[in-house]
Amino acid sequence: MGDNVTDTPTRDRLITEARRLFATRGFRGASVRDITSAARANLGAITYHFGSKRALYDAVLESTLAELVMGVEDAAAQPGTSAERLRDICRTLFGFFREHPATPRLILHELAGRAGLPPAIVPFIRRNLAAVRGVVEQGQARGEFRTADPTLITFSLMSQVIWFAIIGREVVPVVDQATDPASFATRVEQHVADVVTRFLLLEGHPA
Amino acid sequence: MGDNVTDTPTRDRLITEARRLFATRGFRGASVRDITSAARANLGAITYHFGSKRALYDAVLESTLAELVMGVEDAAAQPGTSAERLRDICRTLFGFFREHPATPRLILHELAGRAGLPPAIVPFIRRNLAAVRGVVEQGQARGEFRTADPTLITFSLMSQVIWFAIIGREVVPVVDQATDPASFATRVEQHVADVVTRFLLLEGHPA
Repeated sequence: MGDNVTDTPTRDRLITEARRLFATRGFRGASVRDITSAARANLGAITYHFGSKRALYDAVLESTLAELVMGVEDAAAQPGTSAERLRDICRTLFGFFREHPATPRLILHELAGRAGLPPAIVPFIRRNLAAVRGVVEQGQARGEFRTADPTLITFSLMSQVIWFAIIGREVVPVVDQATDPASFATRVEQHVADVVTRFLLLEGHPA
Repeated sequence: MGDNVTDTPTRDRLITEARRLFATRGFRGASVRDITSAARANLGAITYHFGSKRALYDAVLESTLAELVMGVEDAAAQPGTSAERLRDICRTLFGFFREHPATPRLILHELAGRAGLPPAIVPFIRRNLAAVRGVVEQGQARGEFRTADPTLITFSLMSQVIWFAIIGREVVPVVDQATDPASFATRVEQHVADVVTRFLLLEGHPA
């Protein structure tokens, strides 16, 4: 890996190392020197490529959330019943946080330290909501789903997925000593899909 | 208020001020000097009353969570249908975080900064789970509820309530510009109770 690192463009290396350092140390805890040093770039590289450390943080959030939202939009656009679409979105969300376990921490550091949402998150929240809205409205148009507020459905999905990403590993041994964390994660994923789908489905449609 | 402050025992003033300062600045960000000064106590008061700053943090968490759990246990023990018990628990949880908006931040600072759950939280998680388990099993015994894992039901409740407490105010203007935050909060509270209750209820029982 050592030799390949320098083949990656400096901008990408800065994003990769900043994502890791912001997630573990927070925005203020990760210094410009820490990030440029880890990315094998010179001290001025963040200013040159991004303008400021805050703009680098926004770029880190954007690149992470863009991947998440594209996964959700892709899951929403596949063929199948609306219940299957919703289950696919749920699977995509759990899969994303399994692969990127530092993402909630990246946002939490900001939320814990100051009031307000990082502005870079806003367009991705809206796109996520639009994707879920599409599936909910399609299900209603097809007679599969009852009338429901897509904002509240998105909230139910996201809150359970993100809270599990934040606290899941810590909570398993406390609440469920009999099972291993991996099988507990599978049960939670299945459960969240069940809860939201069953809420929406009209009688006579398979869950 | 100024004169009354000194009537409160020093130990209580330390907990009150530490709760506020840990929530806004985090465990490390709130110094012993900050806390004792805000509580109008001498520098050695934390060591005298608690033994250490970490033990004071645990006492803060314990006093906060004890109130939460007693509310949940009380809601679970009232008469009425099992669905009504679950709705009461949900109302109690939302009410608690509305009255103590800094509580999630208190825990997040710790979760964001290190791996692992603060040990002081563990007994309260278990008591919360036991209270929900009692309601779910009562509902099953009475033929109101389907068979369900109380751990997963508790997870659905807590994750939605806590995530709303963390992010609710910030998210409202992003997703729902038409409504004011207070009426959005009411809709979320109603929705979370609906989602979890409808998941559990067998056909023919009122939601």
